[in-house]
Amino acid sequence: MTKVVYESWGQRVVFGSGTARQDVAAEVTGLGASRVLVIAADGERALAEDICKDIPVVAVFGAVRPHVPAEVAEAVRAAAREHDADLLLSVGGGSTTGTAKAAALTTGLPILAVPTTYAGSEATPVWGLTEDGHKRIGVDPKVLPRVVVYDATLMLSLPTRLSVTSGLNALAHCVDAWWAPRHNPISSALAVEGVRSLASALPRIVADGQDVAARREILFGTYLGAVAFAGAGSGLHHKVCHVLGGAYDLEHAALHSVVLPHVVGLNLAAAPEAERHLATALDSPKDPFSALLDLYSRLEPPCSLAELGLPEEELDRATDLVMAQVPDTNPRRVTRDEMRELLGRAWRGDTPTPYERAAR
Amino acid sequence: MTKVVYESWGQRVVFGSGTARQDVAAEVTGLGASRVLVIAADGERALAEDICKDIPVVAVFGAVRPHVPAEVAEAVRAAAREHDADLLLSVGGGSTTGTAKAAALTTGLPILAVPTTYAGSEATPVWGLTEDGHKRIGVDPKVLPRVVVYDATLMLSLPTRLSVTSGLNALAHCVDAWWAPRHNPISSALAVEGVRSLASALPRIVADGQDVAARREILFGTYLGAVAFAGAGSGLHHKVCHVLGGAYDLEHAALHSVVLPHVVGLNLAAAPEAERHLATALDSPKDPFSALLDLYSRLEPPCSLAELGLPEEELDRATDLVMAQVPDTNPRRVTRDEMRELLGRAWRGDTPTPYERAAR
Repeated sequence: MTKVVYESWGQRVVFGSGTARQDVAAEVTGLGASRVLVIAADGERALAEDICKDIPVVAVFGAVRPHVPAEVAEAVRAAAREHDADLLLSVGGGSTTGTAKAAALTTGLPILAVPTTYAGSEATPVWGLTEDGHKRIGVDPKVLPRVVVYDATLMLSLPTRLSVTSGLNALAHCVDAWWAPRHNPISSALAVEGVRSLASALPRIVADGQDVAARREILFGTYLGAVAFAGAGSGLHHKVCHVLGGAYDLEHAALHSVVLPHVVGLNLAAAPEAERHLATALDSPKDPFSALLDLYSRLEPPCSLAELGLPEEELDRATDLVMAQVPDTNPRRVTRDEMRELLGRAWRGDTPTPYERAAR
Repeated sequence: MTKVVYESWGQRVVFGSGTARQDVAAEVTGLGASRVLVIAADGERALAEDICKDIPVVAVFGAVRPHVPAEVAEAVRAAAREHDADLLLSVGGGSTTGTAKAAALTTGLPILAVPTTYAGSEATPVWGLTEDGHKRIGVDPKVLPRVVVYDATLMLSLPTRLSVTSGLNALAHCVDAWWAPRHNPISSALAVEGVRSLASALPRIVADGQDVAARREILFGTYLGAVAFAGAGSGLHHKVCHVLGGAYDLEHAALHSVVLPHVVGLNLAAAPEAERHLATALDSPKDPFSALLDLYSRLEPPCSLAELGLPEEELDRATDLVMAQVPDTNPRRVTRDEMRELLGRAWRGDTPTPYERAAR
């Protein structure tokens, strides 16, 4: 029997609807903060100012960019020092939370995160910084937000396509946790409930973007997926996306949406526990893989790496890059030919097929 | 939509089999401790000494008693001071862990817990102290063990009856989390997987107490239940048991075993989400309550409060004591007559019946 080591992280999470402003005020008081540096991209500045009306803001940092370039990290740290901030408050998606984490990493300041997408970064101690085209990733409890204030109504303006890809990114956190290097019964249980929430609520968002109850259920799924991911680590799916995203600057959430079913198709037959979890979560005891594809067909996310801008002539190099990152713990050994085939199918947007079946 | 607030707690948990000694040594090193106060009841002293062979022990505190009387708390704190301990290491069941918590509460010393029953106290920040026959209970992050080392082989000598009652106590942590005051999707998800593990593994222990894989699965269920309980708080079941256990000094785990199905019978029809969770966990979509009773009939736990020593003439007073503690958030309003009826059935060991059905 293998040893299982599980680390849980201390965090306070508030799920509300239409209550971000008052919840943020209460939590800032609870943290005893009196000099808040708000981090919000320009597009979300008005929203952030609205949410922060009742708290002591010393400055707003707006120069947020994807993947947290080193110069952005320097700038946000300088802003925190200059304004003598005692709390970092991020309002935004994964890049915004990531910018706050970059500041927390060196300053040790606490973060209060108010997510506006389903990125999930707010519930993990994982940070990332990009320098010279290379993204460094690390884990540090200091960067885990002390408090997260989720407000389902903040997602109402998220466009359908981004809601879907961001939600499928959250789904990928859940699914990959079932075969990630530190997969364990605790993370797996959270992931099952995460998939259940997301699979139930995402189609309702496609039907009606104003469905607050569905938005809220997606937030639960997002949080569960992020905690599962933090506990289990990066599995094959995240390695593939990390490599492709880093090397070719592909749209983050859409990339995850495209890749996930192909990786599931490759792994599922070799991972009976994961198959059981997926079956439970999708309420499809007989054929959970088809149930996953059915969900995709209802959500109509982007389905090819070609449409995300990956040049076809890069597929061989991409395969080599990915092969160097395949986790030893993946439930099946993956050959270079299999990975090249997988990336080819994902590039063309072929229907994902369980590899075992495709090979016959 | 109600607001949901969830607090997670930071803790490192190691699940192994036959590796307690080396895992404890590695974790003591990881914590940087050099003066370890071991807390172990006399009956487990030999085991504790064996586990602690490779670590710097300054003393062993053996005066452990149930419910942590105030004088025991004083004595263990004095021992920690006297020996200038920098780590509390508990080896034992809930009373032993509770004794370490009493010391951590005032000294702030970290705890490394090595459980030998399925009590679950090691995974909660809840402490309890008894003075003048009254048990005070509180929550403090300081008392949550920093590290838990679970070793399934330590449970091999646990007698079948205590394995069953202690396992059902863990099951009660899970089930009560579905309707406890702070019930939430995260705790509920953990509880579903906890019930699944316990329901699968407990009958295997009854068949073969040496089944290490089953012992290990029970530990997962124990941990999941304790984390769910810590997140959701005490529901009706725990209030009933807390009152009866405190007032009449009834055997802790057996008491939980007896009471649980009666409370489930009372609440389930009024708690559709809990019913769905129980159905999922017991893989019984149609009639999860009968599935729970089937599980009980396979485990043959004690089934009456009478055999635990509660005098019949105390049932009216017990009802009054319990009624003062019924959570406002219970899924159904409970009348005094209903509670008297429930306690009467539990006292006699009647088959627990869903109240709605019994009333017809």
